[in-house]
Amino acid sequence: MKKKIKKVNAAILIIGNEILSGRTQDKNVEFISKWLNSKCGISINEVRIIPDKEKIIIKNILHLSKSFNYVFTTGGIGPTHDDITAKSISKAFKIKYEYHKEAYQILEKYYGKKNFNDGRKKMAKMPRNAKLIYNPSSAAPGFMTKNVISLPGVPSILNSMIDNCKRYLTVGSKVHSKTINLYTVESNISKKLENIQKKNKHVDIGSYPFFRLGNIGVAVVIRSILFTKLNKVYLEIIKLAKLKKIKIFKI
Amino acid sequence: MKKKIKKVNAAILIIGNEILSGRTQDKNVEFISKWLNSKCGISINEVRIIPDKEKIIIKNILHLSKSFNYVFTTGGIGPTHDDITAKSISKAFKIKYEYHKEAYQILEKYYGKKNFNDGRKKMAKMPRNAKLIYNPSSAAPGFMTKNVISLPGVPSILNSMIDNCKRYLTVGSKVHSKTINLYTVESNISKKLENIQKKNKHVDIGSYPFFRLGNIGVAVVIRSILFTKLNKVYLEIIKLAKLKKIKIFKI
Repeated sequence: MKKKIKKVNAAILIIGNEILSGRTQDKNVEFISKWLNSKCGISINEVRIIPDKEKIIIKNILHLSKSFNYVFTTGGIGPTHDDITAKSISKAFKIKYEYHKEAYQILEKYYGKKNFNDGRKKMAKMPRNAKLIYNPSSAAPGFMTKNVISLPGVPSILNSMIDNCKRYLTVGSKVHSKTINLYTVESNISKKLENIQKKNKHVDIGSYPFFRLGNIGVAVVIRSILFTKLNKVYLEIIKLAKLKKIKIFKI
Repeated sequence: MKKKIKKVNAAILIIGNEILSGRTQDKNVEFISKWLNSKCGISINEVRIIPDKEKIIIKNILHLSKSFNYVFTTGGIGPTHDDITAKSISKAFKIKYEYHKEAYQILEKYYGKKNFNDGRKKMAKMPRNAKLIYNPSSAAPGFMTKNVISLPGVPSILNSMIDNCKRYLTVGSKVHSKTINLYTVESNISKKLENIQKKNKHVDIGSYPFFRLGNIGVAVVIRSILFTKLNKVYLEIIKLAKLKKIKIFKI
């Protein structure tokens, strides 16, 4: 029986001057990408990092939401003036930007009526009828508008929420991957690898140099939705290494 | 005497499946962005991460090179089949893809005639008349085609080459920045910060929550080309902190 392949893809839109300026190192791409692939069979096909500017956010939301099955935004959903993700998404889709009743209740309960000031209230404002992504660590929920899921930029908070996105996502076929670490240089295997790649279109072969304890090597990473085809390529690369007398480094 | 402001911007195009899949954590955005701002007065306005696919590379090169003063690409200039940056840029600009004489000589000298195999020779192929970016750590040069500078993906190699880009860049006005770490929560200062931002259009005010040794705080980051305006905003925020009796954390 042939397994049906279902490709589901997504883009990540990182909204934040602090990432562009180099002040803050992004850690969300790695986390979201690994989670999406392993838990939902969804591949990230593009990432963009843009400034906190309304026009630019709108343009990118419209483009990415048309081009991919899902878009994950990170950043810009806090209480301050530079948090303009929710408002910008509302404008992009021409949906009313208003208080979300349940989000308002969650936040009011979390802070207490007395401490529920304007900044905190702002975090309950989002595009009308957005679906909430619950936040177990700091209450303020993320939200989904059409195919766009908006999450906070702080990695620890984002990580705690990500499982709550799953119910809204169509699950696709997982991309399997294997890594073969070879003690050689890329140019020594480049021709053979190219041939293997040409014969195996359903498998992506990547090669990445590494340096370890004074030795140089190449990590050959193979990726495919089809596990049997992946395995075939794996064996071909092992054979190539043996033929060329290249030591394989096992981690 | 009024200082003349010169805004020069750039985009970074990260080419590599391994970053999209989350296998590898990008470290080049932070490095390039800080270097460009501090050494050249150039601001990164957009970053894109895309797969090793010719059509997608071409589309992005054409778009970004039109939209920004410079484009920095990272990745895809090695010896293997998945290194297609140089060829894709040639196609994007309809420039012949051929051996660069000096690059060929550099690589032949580095590896020795006997070991200068096809994979290594490939690293000397680039768009005709590209300007070389010398590589002091592993010989294979980067190159500049029109306003696009192509660098390798391995951070240690990229870092060693970056100073060699400077001769090709028009220098702009540096963006100055200051960070004020306040022991408070964002919502406590959001309204006042918004007012300060509204009155000071030449200064970008960002606020970023942090967690340190069990305390929560807000890093207020202010950025401007105009140092005197930056300083004015700095003093206003210090005043705000005093007024609200917020402790300032000095690093």
